[in-house]
Amino acid sequence: MTTKAFGYATHSATSKLAPFHFERRGLRPDDVMLEILYCGVCHSDLHQARDNWKNSIYPMVPGHEIIGRVVRFGEDVTRFNMGDFAGVGCMVHSCLTCDACEADLEQYCRCGATFTYNAIDPRDGQPTYGGYSDTIVVSERFVVKVPKGLDLKGAAPLLCAGITTWSPLRHWKIGKGGKVAVTGLGGLGHMAIKLAKALGAEVSLFTRSPGKAEDARRLGADAIILSTDASQMEAVKGKFDLIIDTVPYAHDLNRYVATLATSGALALVGYLGPLDPALDTIPLIFGRKSIGGSLIGGMAETQELFDFCGEHGIVSDVEIIRMSEINEAYERLLKSDVKYRFVIDMATLRE
Amino acid sequence: MTTKAFGYATHSATSKLAPFHFERRGLRPDDVMLEILYCGVCHSDLHQARDNWKNSIYPMVPGHEIIGRVVRFGEDVTRFNMGDFAGVGCMVHSCLTCDACEADLEQYCRCGATFTYNAIDPRDGQPTYGGYSDTIVVSERFVVKVPKGLDLKGAAPLLCAGITTWSPLRHWKIGKGGKVAVTGLGGLGHMAIKLAKALGAEVSLFTRSPGKAEDARRLGADAIILSTDASQMEAVKGKFDLIIDTVPYAHDLNRYVATLATSGALALVGYLGPLDPALDTIPLIFGRKSIGGSLIGGMAETQELFDFCGEHGIVSDVEIIRMSEINEAYERLLKSDVKYRFVIDMATLRE
Repeated sequence: MTTKAFGYATHSATSKLAPFHFERRGLRPDDVMLEILYCGVCHSDLHQARDNWKNSIYPMVPGHEIIGRVVRFGEDVTRFNMGDFAGVGCMVHSCLTCDACEADLEQYCRCGATFTYNAIDPRDGQPTYGGYSDTIVVSERFVVKVPKGLDLKGAAPLLCAGITTWSPLRHWKIGKGGKVAVTGLGGLGHMAIKLAKALGAEVSLFTRSPGKAEDARRLGADAIILSTDASQMEAVKGKFDLIIDTVPYAHDLNRYVATLATSGALALVGYLGPLDPALDTIPLIFGRKSIGGSLIGGMAETQELFDFCGEHGIVSDVEIIRMSEINEAYERLLKSDVKYRFVIDMATLRE
Repeated sequence: MTTKAFGYATHSATSKLAPFHFERRGLRPDDVMLEILYCGVCHSDLHQARDNWKNSIYPMVPGHEIIGRVVRFGEDVTRFNMGDFAGVGCMVHSCLTCDACEADLEQYCRCGATFTYNAIDPRDGQPTYGGYSDTIVVSERFVVKVPKGLDLKGAAPLLCAGITTWSPLRHWKIGKGGKVAVTGLGGLGHMAIKLAKALGAEVSLFTRSPGKAEDARRLGADAIILSTDASQMEAVKGKFDLIIDTVPYAHDLNRYVATLATSGALALVGYLGPLDPALDTIPLIFGRKSIGGSLIGGMAETQELFDFCGEHGIVSDVEIIRMSEINEAYERLLKSDVKYRFVIDMATLRE
């Protein structure tokens, strides 16, 4: 039996988000229902609400950085109890049988993971609706436990901004003494700095804005490199084991490749599209360097991130907004006017 | 005290290779002198002889796939005795103190490795001369031992074509059951197939020439994929853990990225320059795939390769030529008319 739900949706690429009534599915045996407390606002919410990627399904309830409280669960659920704080991120389903799923890499499911909103759930053919809403129903595998004591508001962005930067740090094996650089200081970049620092790395920020230095240091950066200053770039030539590149538009990777150490990697997490200017293979070959990409993270890895953040007291820097402020928040997002993530307080949903 | 040496050199980008008298340095305590028996002919010999890379030093004695017999050695030499068969590859010196050298990655020496020819040796400011000659003097660290029983003629190309494909196979941890594809069936490609197969991988060849199928199978390929056939490319979508790309000119990597498995890597070993068409980041991100480069291999890894080839009886397929045939061989190289490597029999040097 379905449950009535309420949230904010947009009905077209040019509409504003507005109150919306819909239904959540009846609980399956492995389902958990959350009462949503907080939902982060990711730039991809805006992209999809406005059909920037030409794949939008309307009406759309965005939101994939969801923190809530368990209010119901199915009979096969083993990891959750009533009242537990829990999180739901970018995915709600995957085939669970392919090699990627079996390796806990549901985000790379060969059949295609089902995203938390703007997707069709293959199990019932229904559209998925995200976290700008009062409740959500998700199968247990795609729900993470929030460790005791972690600030719930600041934990919401861990579900996208956090895991997107955590996964490459882990895949490229960053630990104590590792040399990490981050390009771009936004929602992803500020999490990359915090997480790399907590893993014991020496962390640098590449930025074009001298004004970001103070904040970057506060977040944990050991050094700030003005990418527009040739001498500063030259000074870090051959230095980094890993660069996490969060810049969301086409930019010259060759300048950053020069700053990688032998066998170093640049992990793209922000920009989707053809590289322009062209990537030069010479420095790749003469330093065994690589350019890779990384997409969010698997569910086991997301739980690992939450546990790590619980131990280290790490959350996102957030600006709490009311649900009714979402359209204004989108306009501010377009101007990068947020430090560093908007989070909707869902207690304001019905105001 | 220097030793008189004799070889073939070119004196300009447009000259033919011709007999040349020069001197080898007097032995230092850690030096080994080889009487050269065989020297492979690498396409880069031709590039440098003709100044294609605009960095040529003349007169130039090319050759960096050198197999010889130890005829003298310095007092500090510990790994060689008179009469031992030994090999010298692309490098003859590096700083030995940087992090790369300390990690046995002399090819990525931060100070720059000294190449076997067309380089200036920083220890004496003298040009290096390669293996198209009767003798060579090289410090022990840059000399490998040839295992007993390995065919000496076929072993020569292991020193460049062999190690260039071995190193990425090892770095990207290819073992039993690994899925490897090779693009391009030339000197590098044919070694990549043999080595990947001997490591227990399932090996495929990407080629544009159906005529290469039979030879590829003989060399060990399990499958041949016509890269011009969309249905054959589609059939291997998401398959490979590693692609070793030996193609020496700009080509569309995106088509090969599509055939990588999750977390798969494409290792460039052939093409130096900007990628054209542009690399698309979307498949990199949505599959945690990467594009890397790899340059020859370190000395410890080159010895490992020789030991592996000794155990498995692997050598290059070679066509033996006389020294006086070198200019004609270069013309044939330009037409890829060799299966799969020319090797000069140095007994013919004075003919």
